[in-house]
Amino acid sequence: MGQELNKIGIEVLRIVSIRDREEEIMEAVDNAMKRVNIVLVTGGLGPTKDDITKQTLCKYFHTELIFSEEVFENVKRVLAGKIPMNALNKSQAMVPKDCTVINNPVGSASVSWFEKDNKVLVSMPGVPQEMTAVMTESVLPKLREKFQTDVIMHRTFLVQHYPESILAEKLEPWETALPESIKLAYLPKLGIIRLRLTGRGQNKIEVESALNDEQAKLEAILGDDIFSEEDIPLEVIVGELLKKKNLTVSTAESCTGGSIAARLTSIAGSSEYFNGGIVAYSNEVKMNLLHVSPETLEVYGAVSEQTVIEMVKGAMKALKTDCAVATSGIAGPGGGTPEKPVGTVWIAAGYKNEIRTYRQETNRGRAMNIERAGNNALLILRDLLK
Amino acid sequence: MGQELNKIGIEVLRIVSIRDREEEIMEAVDNAMKRVNIVLVTGGLGPTKDDITKQTLCKYFHTELIFSEEVFENVKRVLAGKIPMNALNKSQAMVPKDCTVINNPVGSASVSWFEKDNKVLVSMPGVPQEMTAVMTESVLPKLREKFQTDVIMHRTFLVQHYPESILAEKLEPWETALPESIKLAYLPKLGIIRLRLTGRGQNKIEVESALNDEQAKLEAILGDDIFSEEDIPLEVIVGELLKKKNLTVSTAESCTGGSIAARLTSIAGSSEYFNGGIVAYSNEVKMNLLHVSPETLEVYGAVSEQTVIEMVKGAMKALKTDCAVATSGIAGPGGGTPEKPVGTVWIAAGYKNEIRTYRQETNRGRAMNIERAGNNALLILRDLLK
Repeated sequence: MGQELNKIGIEVLRIVSIRDREEEIMEAVDNAMKRVNIVLVTGGLGPTKDDITKQTLCKYFHTELIFSEEVFENVKRVLAGKIPMNALNKSQAMVPKDCTVINNPVGSASVSWFEKDNKVLVSMPGVPQEMTAVMTESVLPKLREKFQTDVIMHRTFLVQHYPESILAEKLEPWETALPESIKLAYLPKLGIIRLRLTGRGQNKIEVESALNDEQAKLEAILGDDIFSEEDIPLEVIVGELLKKKNLTVSTAESCTGGSIAARLTSIAGSSEYFNGGIVAYSNEVKMNLLHVSPETLEVYGAVSEQTVIEMVKGAMKALKTDCAVATSGIAGPGGGTPEKPVGTVWIAAGYKNEIRTYRQETNRGRAMNIERAGNNALLILRDLLK
Repeated sequence: MGQELNKIGIEVLRIVSIRDREEEIMEAVDNAMKRVNIVLVTGGLGPTKDDITKQTLCKYFHTELIFSEEVFENVKRVLAGKIPMNALNKSQAMVPKDCTVINNPVGSASVSWFEKDNKVLVSMPGVPQEMTAVMTESVLPKLREKFQTDVIMHRTFLVQHYPESILAEKLEPWETALPESIKLAYLPKLGIIRLRLTGRGQNKIEVESALNDEQAKLEAILGDDIFSEEDIPLEVIVGELLKKKNLTVSTAESCTGGSIAARLTSIAGSSEYFNGGIVAYSNEVKMNLLHVSPETLEVYGAVSEQTVIEMVKGAMKALKTDCAVATSGIAGPGGGTPEKPVGTVWIAAGYKNEIRTYRQETNRGRAMNIERAGNNALLILRDLLK
């Protein structure tokens, strides 16, 4: 809720969680109504006897509960076929008299919008997906309308090839010259840096135009290091690229243990471009299924550039795909050596006859080493396909 | 924090998040100190100028900041080799005079324990792993000692083979007869139900003995349907079993897309029993690498008992393992038919010549269908090995 409110220029002053007790609700509501312009309340709207928010708000606003035919129709629609209608469900159609009632499209608890002294209190269901639905569809637009808040717009850019400090240095002259109305945030995540530009102002066209100007400057500085202008998962970006180019992909994973295949196939429709993968954890599987040569494993070791090159070739051949990614490394916590400490991962991406490799270093714990290797594998594949 | 406090019998009355402003901190602290016996404060202890918790608490408790040699030694130890020591870090060694200072084993911000009118306020760092460390090592034991709270003990049992409602029916007579001091909670999760018994009392030996009695009764009712008496991930349970029996495992995954392999290899040391896996997304890969016969795919389809049986055999053979699991299903949202609606997943587990299969039904969305199929595959393998 806080993030969405910030986006429309409403600052969150305080977050309070309390128990379902009348006197505690009364006191917290009163305290908040004295302090701020907008009070958003969630929860306590269910049909059981520990749900007392609705009655308590009636008491606070000196009103009473009345039966709403419209809300009752909505309750029947939402519960249709799921559970039998009983007196408890019917109580869901009781709403405070002196308030604006907003229907809940995905649940049986309706929303109550109270106003007093030009301040607003909105009571919403506590079930997260119901709260999200009513916030998005009704509450946020109504708040913007009533309080005429600033226009706030965000643009997110996904950047590769940079550690945060080096990127910050490169962007410093541009960042310093940003107009007052535009803010920049760095949100780094395991090999990827998300840059978020936030523009704010009274006029939508002006905010949009200022963002366009700065986006153009940023693109001129970073070029293709910006690999996405939308904040979406890498597996979606790579999947879209494969679909567009009508190519198929496979995976040959050692230390990432199937997690890259799992990420690619987490996307609906991935069977269009993903044929399959081989998780080659043991050297024997690397030899038997990916045809990595015993000499390579003997001379260079399983965690080596030579091995991942042979793995990626083996995957493209065995799984008959246009391109592939391969990983082999020491995810940890055990297994490190002075030459190949924990965190060392060799990564390869291949497309037809071209192969690119990368050595990932520094140990951030098993789970993050694995996730970061997956990010790097997908980024290298994307670079290669571009 | 709330969960850990509940475990030692301390009820959380209110959670308040506020801004780093002196007057807001003063008011919130004063309000809380009037209301409860224990106030736990996190955050605002860093070395930068927006961190004002320490100074503000000094003002509230009418004391001042003094330099602590002991805390300074700890700051130097914690920051050793990471970042150069400067005046800001040195300010971390300034502590309130009238309080008990507790060292932070993993960070530079120390903990301040204030007492007033037999009430306690503890100021802790906001960095989650630092807060967790000081809560576990110092704050919780000191709270228990000071407030002599009840002994609270938990036992968790992981149960398979039951939908929640059927299990509840079966356990009803036992649950109804539970002594006052013992509570039961159902925590279901995608094919697994976690049953948590919580015992509470003044005397540790009595609580333990009551829990032992009820555990014995529960085990008599459910037998081997309790597959773990510890709340640990399935991949750990299966991994331990494989290690104990000195067996190797492989995976043949279609709809789960490598996620079972990724779960098995997320455990350090899994190379002892996991050789590798094949993600057979396309029928071609099922035929070429797992040797599923074209006739089987033709006659029964990829999502069928016959196919997963051949997949599991193919995995044991190609990856040379003692046992294997296989999945093939319609994860969704597309691809369903009247006979095989979205959510249908065939699962097989094999151990030498024995193979067990299971048809998973009902659609809970792509991600949950995949996770649940992984749970079921690992549960069936465990049953088979037992």
